[in-house]
Amino acid sequence: MSNVSLPHIQSAHDRIRPYIHRTPILTSETLNQRSGASLFFKCENFQKIGAFKIRGGMNAALSLSPEELQKGLATHSSGNHAQAIAYAARQLGVKAYIVMPHTSPKVKVAAVQGYGGEVIFCEPNQQARESTLREVVERTGASFIHPYDDDRVIAGQATCAKELIEDVPDLNAVIAPVGGGGLMSGSALSRHYLLPGGKMYAGEPEGAADAILSFQSGKVEKAPFVSTIADGLMTALSPRTLGIIREHVTEIILVSEAEIIEALRLVYERMKIVVEPSCVVPLAAVLKRRDLFEGQGVGIILTGGNVDLTQIGRWLS
Amino acid sequence: MSNVSLPHIQSAHDRIRPYIHRTPILTSETLNQRSGASLFFKCENFQKIGAFKIRGGMNAALSLSPEELQKGLATHSSGNHAQAIAYAARQLGVKAYIVMPHTSPKVKVAAVQGYGGEVIFCEPNQQARESTLREVVERTGASFIHPYDDDRVIAGQATCAKELIEDVPDLNAVIAPVGGGGLMSGSALSRHYLLPGGKMYAGEPEGAADAILSFQSGKVEKAPFVSTIADGLMTALSPRTLGIIREHVTEIILVSEAEIIEALRLVYERMKIVVEPSCVVPLAAVLKRRDLFEGQGVGIILTGGNVDLTQIGRWLS
Repeated sequence: MSNVSLPHIQSAHDRIRPYIHRTPILTSETLNQRSGASLFFKCENFQKIGAFKIRGGMNAALSLSPEELQKGLATHSSGNHAQAIAYAARQLGVKAYIVMPHTSPKVKVAAVQGYGGEVIFCEPNQQARESTLREVVERTGASFIHPYDDDRVIAGQATCAKELIEDVPDLNAVIAPVGGGGLMSGSALSRHYLLPGGKMYAGEPEGAADAILSFQSGKVEKAPFVSTIADGLMTALSPRTLGIIREHVTEIILVSEAEIIEALRLVYERMKIVVEPSCVVPLAAVLKRRDLFEGQGVGIILTGGNVDLTQIGRWLS
Repeated sequence: MSNVSLPHIQSAHDRIRPYIHRTPILTSETLNQRSGASLFFKCENFQKIGAFKIRGGMNAALSLSPEELQKGLATHSSGNHAQAIAYAARQLGVKAYIVMPHTSPKVKVAAVQGYGGEVIFCEPNQQARESTLREVVERTGASFIHPYDDDRVIAGQATCAKELIEDVPDLNAVIAPVGGGGLMSGSALSRHYLLPGGKMYAGEPEGAADAILSFQSGKVEKAPFVSTIADGLMTALSPRTLGIIREHVTEIILVSEAEIIEALRLVYERMKIVVEPSCVVPLAAVLKRRDLFEGQGVGIILTGGNVDLTQIGRWLS
């Protein structure tokens, strides 16, 4: 059972609205033809910090008491969540402490520092991340905001599907990618509350197939192997996100690396927008599973656009 | 003196409206900060065929008599104009004959064929292009539509700045790139008729600096050298486009390759959209010339998004 109710999601939306974009929804004739469905792309690549993560991070920050907030925000992440927390802190005039492995790409470190975040380096393993974060929190009194295992974060991420459902009437289904499950559980809850007749699907790479195993067994499982260009989706679920997903998601659809690259090519060449590989996993799933989506109105969440374009160029060559 | 009047542009717009997108206008906080101006990007990369060229091509095609049209359309081009003519012909249910050098990249040939155009190969020089085109026209009776030296094409391209001026009130200036001058002369005319208090600027690469020389001397000049990643801007003006440009353009601003690449990086990384290098030449000009643009509302025409992403990745590496 989730503790995130519709009023939680509505309050989250009211809270974060001044700080986020209501991102546009794009359509593509070519992709409708290819899929046989009517696709509505919710473009979180145009969101502040270039990804949906600002929604959850900002909602968590704005849910703190003034005393808590004043001591700053802390997290461990080398991805978009790190940028979200740094950006949220700057908007709110407080400090952000971001624990990152010292092996993180310089561009990711620079992005966090560019938003004014203080980066604290640690050894590149889970234990070091957690112990370093603990030290930072003890030293500064900053509030730890987990990337996904947090009801405030889930309620924030839920606002993305909420906007999509509000802006496109009569969708038959919503689909998003699944990594740690913050966006997926939030989207599933918004779909449940606001589109009760519709279905919720998840797209997951074969090379990070933990969520589908967890979905089947009912407990948090590891992926049999981790190897995918969709680097935002390598994280495992938490019991909290798994619970919501098992309750409210119809099916998790696996896609191959070749299918991800083909979807990436279509989005860059036909829609002319810059997206992360993790982003196109749901489109790959929709193209693969005509049996599920043909003739349907499908809302697809494009999660972000923070990429190394040189790498994208290589994948599409 | 140009023969393209405001009613010509208005009729062109009415004629082509059912066949084109009214493309969105995007803004970017980061780019406003960088430039010190308020920038409004008219996104023709989201246009049909991925470029503004469909406007002029479609207007020329729709200006033909039914008898003429029925015999088809013809042109020589290996760029976006070729795709525009092929697309326009298919929409109107007639044939398109496109003369292309046999050295053209396969992807360009495939794009034209993908829109149902018939490609006729020729030797890669101007004389062969023209003689091959003449043969095609004699054999088929198809109507030749020049990429830019044609009032119908100029009136069609003018609809892009017309939409921009209609959608963003109180612009101080409009800026577009200049190649053969079809878009530039059309934009300059729309600015003249619809934004009489504003200024019209052109951006041109140092590595294809023919327009600025022609602008100064008053006759069509060749570029001293041609070497630029902005491959859509290598063409020289015609007397017709030069005449309009001399009458209605305030200044042509030259930018270096390094400035083009920096502008390209900003558009990909900050705006998260896919654009051609030719496209970002005006942004590079605005960033270079704070003296002209600081504090101004500036409409920038982003001309298209048909690119080789592998190449883009290499430039941005």
